[in-house]
Amino acid sequence: SKYEYVKSFELSDALLPHTWIVIRIDGKGFTRFSQAHGFTKPNDEQALRLMNEGARAVFEDLPDVCFGYGVSDEYSFVLKKNSKLYQRRASKLVSIIVSLFSATYVMKWGQYFPGKEIQYAPSFDGRAVCYPSDAILRDYLSWRQVDCHINNQYNTCYWNLVQSGSSPTEAQSLIKGTLADFKNELLHSRFGINYNELPPIFRKGSLIFRRKEETVVKVEDGVPVKRLKSQVVVTHEDLIKDRFWKENPSILGTAGSKKSAS
Amino acid sequence: SKYEYVKSFELSDALLPHTWIVIRIDGKGFTRFSQAHGFTKPNDEQALRLMNEGARAVFEDLPDVCFGYGVSDEYSFVLKKNSKLYQRRASKLVSIIVSLFSATYVMKWGQYFPGKEIQYAPSFDGRAVCYPSDAILRDYLSWRQVDCHINNQYNTCYWNLVQSGSSPTEAQSLIKGTLADFKNELLHSRFGINYNELPPIFRKGSLIFRRKEETVVKVEDGVPVKRLKSQVVVTHEDLIKDRFWKENPSILGTAGSKKSAS
Amino acid sequence: SKYEYVKSFELSDALLPHTWIVIRIDGKGFTRFSQAHGFTKPNDEQALRLMNEGARAVFEDLPDVCFGYGVSDEYSFVLKKNSKLYQRRASKLVSIIVSLFSATYVMKWGQYFPGKEIQYAPSFDGRAVCYPSDAILRDYLSWRQVDCHINNQYNTCYWNLVQSGSSPTEAQSLIKGTLADFKNELLHSRFGINYNELPPIFRKGSLIFRRKEETVVKVEDGVPVKRLKSQVVVTHEDLIKDRFWKENPSILGTAGSKKSAS
Amino acid sequence: SKYEYVKSFELSDALLPHTWIVIRIDGKGFTRFSQAHGFTKPNDEQALRLMNEGARAVFEDLPDVCFGYGVSDEYSFVLKKNSKLYQRRASKLVSIIVSLFSATYVMKWGQYFPGKEIQYAPSFDGRAVCYPSDAILRDYLSWRQVDCHINNQYNTCYWNLVQSGSSPTEAQSLIKGTLADFKNELLHSRFGINYNELPPIFRKGSLIFRRKEETVVKVEDGVPVKRLKSQVVVTHEDLIKDRFWKENPSILGTAGSKKSAS
Ligand SMILES: Nc1nc2c(ncn2[C@H]2C[C@H](O)[C@@H](COP(=O)(O)OP(=O)(O)OP(=O)(O)O)O2)c(=O)[nH]1
Ligand SMILES: Nc1nc2c(ncn2[C@H]2C[C@H](O)[C@@H](COP(=O)(O)OP(=O)(O)OP(=O)(O)O)O2)c(=O)[nH]1
Ligand SMILES: Nc1nc2c(ncn2[C@H]2C[C@H](O)[C@@H](COP(=O)(O)OP(=O)(O)OP(=O)(O)O)O2)c(=O)[nH]1
Ligand SMILES: Nc1nc2c(ncn2[C@H]2C[C@H](O)[C@@H](COP(=O)(O)OP(=O)(O)OP(=O)(O)O)O2)c(=O)[nH]1
Ligand SMILES: O=P(O)(O)OP(=O)(O)OP(=O)(O)O
Ligand SMILES: O=P(O)(O)OP(=O)(O)OP(=O)(O)O
Ligand SMILES: O=P(O)(O)OP(=O)(O)OP(=O)(O)O
Ligand SMILES: O=P(O)(O)OP(=O)(O)OP(=O)(O)O
Ligand SMILES: [Mg+2]
Ligand SMILES: [Mg+2]
Ligand SMILES: [Mg+2]
Ligand SMILES: [Mg+2]
Ligand SMILES: [Mg+2]
Ligand SMILES: [Mg+2]
Ligand SMILES: [Mg+2]
Ligand SMILES: [Mg+2]
Ligand SMILES: [Mg+2]
Ligand SMILES: [Mg+2]
Ligand SMILES: [Mg+2]
Ligand SMILES: [Mg+2]
Repeated sequence: SKYEYVKSFELSDALLPHTWIVIRIDGKGFTRFSQAHGFTKPNDEQALRLMNEGARAVFEDLPDVCFGYGVSDEYSFVLKKNSKLYQRRASKLVSIIVSLFSATYVMKWGQYFPGKEIQYAPSFDGRAVCYPSDAILRDYLSWRQVDCHINNQYNTCYWNLVQSGSSPTEAQSLIKGTLADFKNELLHSRFGINYNELPPIFRKGSLIFRRKEETVVKVEDGVPVKRLKSQVVVTHEDLIKDRFWKENPSILGTAGSKKSAS
Repeated sequence: SKYEYVKSFELSDALLPHTWIVIRIDGKGFTRFSQAHGFTKPNDEQALRLMNEGARAVFEDLPDVCFGYGVSDEYSFVLKKNSKLYQRRASKLVSIIVSLFSATYVMKWGQYFPGKEIQYAPSFDGRAVCYPSDAILRDYLSWRQVDCHINNQYNTCYWNLVQSGSSPTEAQSLIKGTLADFKNELLHSRFGINYNELPPIFRKGSLIFRRKEETVVKVEDGVPVKRLKSQVVVTHEDLIKDRFWKENPSILGTAGSKKSAS
Repeated sequence: SKYEYVKSFELSDALLPHTWIVIRIDGKGFTRFSQAHGFTKPNDEQALRLMNEGARAVFEDLPDVCFGYGVSDEYSFVLKKNSKLYQRRASKLVSIIVSLFSATYVMKWGQYFPGKEIQYAPSFDGRAVCYPSDAILRDYLSWRQVDCHINNQYNTCYWNLVQSGSSPTEAQSLIKGTLADFKNELLHSRFGINYNELPPIFRKGSLIFRRKEETVVKVEDGVPVKRLKSQVVVTHEDLIKDRFWKENPSILGTAGSKKSAS
Repeated sequence: SKYEYVKSFELSDALLPHTWIVIRIDGKGFTRFSQAHGFTKPNDEQALRLMNEGARAVFEDLPDVCFGYGVSDEYSFVLKKNSKLYQRRASKLVSIIVSLFSATYVMKWGQYFPGKEIQYAPSFDGRAVCYPSDAILRDYLSWRQVDCHINNQYNTCYWNLVQSGSSPTEAQSLIKGTLADFKNELLHSRFGINYNELPPIFRKGSLIFRRKEETVVKVEDGVPVKRLKSQVVVTHEDLIKDRFWKENPSILGTAGSKKSAS
């Protein structure tokens, strides 16, 4: 039609080739959403596991997503460096991921909050960021996990204080600006909590990735037959130190990475 | 933390000020999704009304969205020219809208398809496009409505032929490349269908916007008291001719548009 | 060659269609350049006319440039709204213009500063900005001319004071923050200068554009034959009020602008 | 002034951090420019050396430029990976470099073409491209040097054929699509030219970079005192193999590159 010229106003938003693309999504106004749905404070395990379901759907739909990290109301998805998915168009990647995540979050709500109706539709913002090297990508992920740790320590202190009778202002003024050791000590002495024994999902966040796992592929004469199959797994471990990356070299593809810029 | 430098890799994607921002979203793989859920062919009224629910949620959440147009598995949302929402950041706008739409689509599924379970999470892609003048914005919307018309006429012929015994190839070869009149005539002579009497939602798509409506605001002594209140309405009318825009001057803000570039 | 993949790292920087493109260039470190070459203070007429030569070269090379405005060490070039020059690629447009301007500046130096050798190569920065409507484009140009006026008034006062014995600090503290009237009065009472009688090139800057002029095209039997021919002209007049644009409707193309978005 | 809002239409064009920025400039219409000035075919040594003067000016002005490569009417400038020059704004970098290069080209013309007046102002286009790793940056530079080689071999054959009586069409059809060996053989058998003995500036292009050189810093009692000083040098050597980069590790900064993403 004579109106088709309007299509020419769509400008390219392709992302730089050969860089890690991170799509980070974050719940919009989840301060209110978590209150409206009575999420446990400071961490609601069911809410976090529901987030992980959203991430799992993204993994199943988009093979180019090679790693994910979730904490609180946010999730980061890493696309492999050489992905050509949607010609690396930023808005395509951001929208497809945030859309699938949101739809899955609502679809699976009932499984994680049985009997609790969802009050209103949640939404997530999203953005695409490029990281040019493995080292910087790891720094990005470390940034998120350090954030998880710091917020969690703070929030654990804060809510224990408040739940044991402190006013919000008292709680805040007691812990604001203090070091990690002080907070650990406070949790221990006042509430008998050993911080390092809190559930890893709270302390470390959630890592999602593919891993070759022994899987039962069929049962022959009553005997389960196992094969190494690539599975999407969710763990709650340290990703800052080298160990995780050495144990899972295929994520960043360090195996065959000697050359091959193209 | 020492990792915070990674935040500096987020580059600005702000859109040009003082232009109409259109966010167009489109169902990913809805050819399959509509089959998997047995959508009526070529148009499933319930599916279209569910799309309109998604659009309504966007209108309720984002006051800067001043117009929407939906057809098939797509929806276009227009942000007013001077919107400063999220500093006009493309990925924020695209992601928030596509996310809320997707979540609402799933939440309201049961109301539109009672008894039919949703098989898998749908998703939508999204993009932001700027249009620098009212005339070009209207050309954009006309483009979508002309597309609606052309596709609908074609599909109505096609599915009537197929449902009355033609093979897909026969049906296609009969109508491909023919003019509108031929198709109208074919519908009339072969199937007794007067194209112009088909439901407007199929022929015109869905327009969503705010309009001052007489609304019952309270009931006093059994007498309903009405006021003119801004309501979100969905209609199915022509938006190509001037008439619609003259009847609804507030959408493009033609009222106070004499000066005021800033 | 196997290296050609590197070309794919070139990302599109196309500018939004149907908007006025302004390329503004500005001398890099002209505080030093003007001192090194003993430019008259506060305005060096020869330096300004040399800038206008650079602009003229841009006009001759690029027919899509429809207007230019110069003041101090800067020049703004307007490309017509529907220009498709270099597919509207920002870096192509900026680089071609700034490069031609710079080369011309050096080439013509000797004509404007005969006997004064150029000490070192000058350079200019450049940027592209889109303006979506005629009104905003005019506001842009008005912004530059208001800037010219304000700076010129200030500088004229400042340098007259300094040249008549004030110290820089005295001069500055006397005029900083004062209104236009005060400065005009000061120029008049202290230096007998009527501001409005200063050369228009200082007060208004330089406008460059194409205009149909009576031009001698040949001489027949000793009689010059004139025709209306499009000529590049440089003037020094007000561009803020409507008058200039009404007298020169072809610049913004108001003649045939009723419809034709495409 | 009330017009200042127009400044907000300037959108960010910052380039991704921690990537090599290449600014490539290329003479606009140098087919014509080289003819108009009678450049020797296929290579004019003076013209190439004048290009190198332009590059030298860029090196002297911008310490963040760490490498340059020139061939024919083009030059590529590499900014170091962590450069923050002009906040990595693409148009600033492109314009400053292309402008300084162009101005210098004209200023130094007379030194390289004494007695030959420049006919009209040359101009160069420019663009910025990011390369995320050292390996890809090297592939970029190799791409340009391979191009130099291929073009030079072709052109040397072509012009020798034409100058010895072949028509352009004959010359073209004889060499088009032939391999390197064939062309070398043709040069040798028909014109007694050993390709590898042609001047390196033609075969390899020009590399420009900083290198610690023994330099006379003063003369004491008639004895020249030398120091190792960083000098800008121009060479004509292979940059595709590792050798050059191993001999000049400071260019890519391989010395201290173990960590330090930030
Ligand atoms: N009670 C509870 N609250 C949570 C949980 N996870 C996240 N939240 C809440 C705590 C924070 O108020 C909020 C996440 O912080 P954000 O900085 O993302 O703020 P919010 O989403 O309100 O605003 P935004 O739209 O992202 O700018 O969500 C949880 O497991 N339990
Ligand atoms: N039966 C039926 N199908 C519909 C209806 N609305 C949309 N569809 C189907 C028809 C098309 O195959 C598809 C929309 O076309 P698209 O060009 O968006 O294709 P699709 O979504 O498959 O691929 P995409 O991911 O958008 O590239 O959705 C409906 O009301 N009834
Ligand atoms: N004496 C004299 N100086 C002039 C004339 N035109 C411009 N200038 C000087 C005055 C200012 O110091 C300078 C222009 O101001 P800018 O803001 O562009 O500063 P400058 O070019 O030094 O720095 P930049 O690289 O643009 O950030 O050039 C003139 O006609 N005569
Ligand atoms: N005779 C001669 N010609 C040269 C020399 N260096 C470059 N040229 C000419 C050969 C080519 O026609 C031209 C460079 O090719 P380009 O692809 O850059 O084409 P051109 O600059 O004409 O067009 P453009 O504006 O870059 O698209 O310059 C030289 O040293 N001697
Ligand atoms: O944590 P972020 O990166 O989302 O930071 P923010 O302060 O929420 O900023 P924005 O979401 O507006 O980028
Ligand atoms: O109809 P569109 O604009 O979505 O066109 P398309 O052919 O689907 O292309 P894409 O979605 O990849 O822009
Ligand atoms: O006058 P401008 O727009 O050049 O403003 P500036 O302060 O020089 O800023 P920059 O040149 O860095 O955009
Ligand atoms: O050699 P290049 O990269 O300049 O390629 P081109 O064919 O000249 O294209 P353009 O200059 O328009 O990018
Ligand atoms: Mg945020
Ligand atoms: Mg949030
Ligand atoms: Mg958050
Ligand atoms: Mg599409
Ligand atoms: Mg679709
Ligand atoms: Mg569609
Ligand atoms: Mg500036
Ligand atoms: Mg300046
Ligand atoms: Mg200036
Ligand atoms: Mg080119
Ligand atoms: Mg060229
Ligand atoms: Mg070239």
